[in-house]
Amino acid sequence: MPTPTFQPQAADWLQRVHESFERQAAMRTLGAQLASVQPGEVTIELDWAPALTQQHGFLHAGMVATALDSACGYAGFSLMPADAAVLTIEFKINLLAPARGERFRMTGTVIKPGRTVTVCEGRAIAFDGGREKLVATMSCTLMAVTGREGVQG
Amino acid sequence: MPTPTFQPQAADWLQRVHESFERQAAMRTLGAQLASVQPGEVTIELDWAPALTQQHGFLHAGMVATALDSACGYAGFSLMPADAAVLTIEFKINLLAPARGERFRMTGTVIKPGRTVTVCEGRAIAFDGGREKLVATMSCTLMAVTGREGVQG
Amino acid sequence: MPTPTFQPQAADWLQRVHESFERQAAMRTLGAQLASVQPGEVTIELDWAPALTQQHGFLHAGMVATALDSACGYAGFSLMPADAAVLTIEFKINLLAPARGERFRMTGTVIKPGRTVTVCEGRAIAFDGGREKLVATMSCTLMAVTGREGVQG
Amino acid sequence: MPTPTFQPQAADWLQRVHESFERQAAMRTLGAQLASVQPGEVTIELDWAPALTQQHGFLHAGMVATALDSACGYAGFSLMPADAAVLTIEFKINLLAPARGERFRMTGTVIKPGRTVTVCEGRAIAFDGGREKLVATMSCTLMAVTGREGVQG
Repeated sequence: MPTPTFQPQAADWLQRVHESFERQAAMRTLGAQLASVQPGEVTIELDWAPALTQQHGFLHAGMVATALDSACGYAGFSLMPADAAVLTIEFKINLLAPARGERFRMTGTVIKPGRTVTVCEGRAIAFDGGREKLVATMSCTLMAVTGREGVQG
Repeated sequence: MPTPTFQPQAADWLQRVHESFERQAAMRTLGAQLASVQPGEVTIELDWAPALTQQHGFLHAGMVATALDSACGYAGFSLMPADAAVLTIEFKINLLAPARGERFRMTGTVIKPGRTVTVCEGRAIAFDGGREKLVATMSCTLMAVTGREGVQG
Repeated sequence: MPTPTFQPQAADWLQRVHESFERQAAMRTLGAQLASVQPGEVTIELDWAPALTQQHGFLHAGMVATALDSACGYAGFSLMPADAAVLTIEFKINLLAPARGERFRMTGTVIKPGRTVTVCEGRAIAFDGGREKLVATMSCTLMAVTGREGVQG
Repeated sequence: MPTPTFQPQAADWLQRVHESFERQAAMRTLGAQLASVQPGEVTIELDWAPALTQQHGFLHAGMVATALDSACGYAGFSLMPADAAVLTIEFKINLLAPARGERFRMTGTVIKPGRTVTVCEGRAIAFDGGREKLVATMSCTLMAVTGREGVQG
């Protein structure tokens, strides 16, 4: 089955994604940048850094998950209406290999958009000395919320 | 059914957990401390900090997951033999409420230890102005690995 | 933290659970009965049967999941308003041991009720020659839906 | 990244998959057939049947999961050595839409084979009056086990 093409609802969807990402201080902690933002698909990239590691010097699984969760979240958010905020309901991550490498690319893709609930998939790739390797996959459920105090964007 | 009591295999299990936790630079990035280490159950605590937040100022779901993953990982590691390292195979997290609060407590508990595969559950509690609230639950599968280059503890 | 006590919204919540369960033909295929229905917690029991087995003669993981999903679904449904139907958004199951035994008990418990989204946990216990064993755990996200054609109860 | 091509280890891998599938009585209960068996990818098909339904007449989420779990399990099993049996450690399923339709196709694909642990993904498609729709996705972790009494194939 071909991948569906998604149509954003908010005229300023691209700006909304960038502005919200800038407000995610956790992304700065990861040294993460938005590498690509398309309707329903967002890619985040980051360099290996000592502050993100587990006991063996690899990227901590939770840090891989943090970047994947944001990639999925913004993939979903890119399709939501202008008055909606996005919250993650749940995600699951499979760590296929230790996150060893000098740079990482996390891509989130909407596989089922919805008025209330949106489902995304994520892929994390490690660049390790010229080779690229799939190190993690995620499935993620998002909720569009409107009108909650303190939750915007 | 009563909760089983677990018996560590490594004589220095407590020291091994503390030493490995100290090597997890990601835990320092989170400002996380080991609050309790028992055979098969580990609790990590951390304060809210701007560097850990998402766009609404709550703790980023991925940061909640990072602390829960470490709590689960060390809960499992506490029961593993002295020559084993621990890797996370997968985890799933349900975010029950926004992680709003000034301090957070993540507890990981082994529900099924195994020679190769160990399964844990995690709970994240937020302390928010005198109230405590369950904000996330995790299920987590760990693998004990031995003899892999570069993977110790 | 103590387990919360839940208050059903629909006056006929108990009848609604029983009637909906009766309409789940899959439960008859499993030979499953409602063993206990309380607000926010439902237990289903079933006997081992050849028709439910995998290649080693144990209960198929999917059949364990089917009973756990219904237990979780009805735990959530018991708390929903009278005009709501329940759909499963996602679930994850950890198989802790082969589902070997002559009888099985699956319990679903609400851990976070919500207007739209409800989160439950499930436990499957096998009774095997006088011993009982935890064989699977589930986390499950449900959605309350109203006004959809063809979806009632 | 291109999909990897997998090389079976057991000379009789195809026969092993078919024979083990035949021993899964649960597959007969579902009316499920092996539609395609390739190294690392297995497709199962089944017709809608009253015995598999939930309260709205759709395929029960657990029955969708049962077929997906077997598709994933045999995808992994096709790559395992001749003395190995396969057990599911865990799976997670996202139900993207009610499983409405007259026929269903579940495909499991290995995304990371391993000596001990194999990770697969599954897709369930419903055929509903000439249209096909993705109704569920799964991620699944399998373990290859050898030498356990009562667990063969």
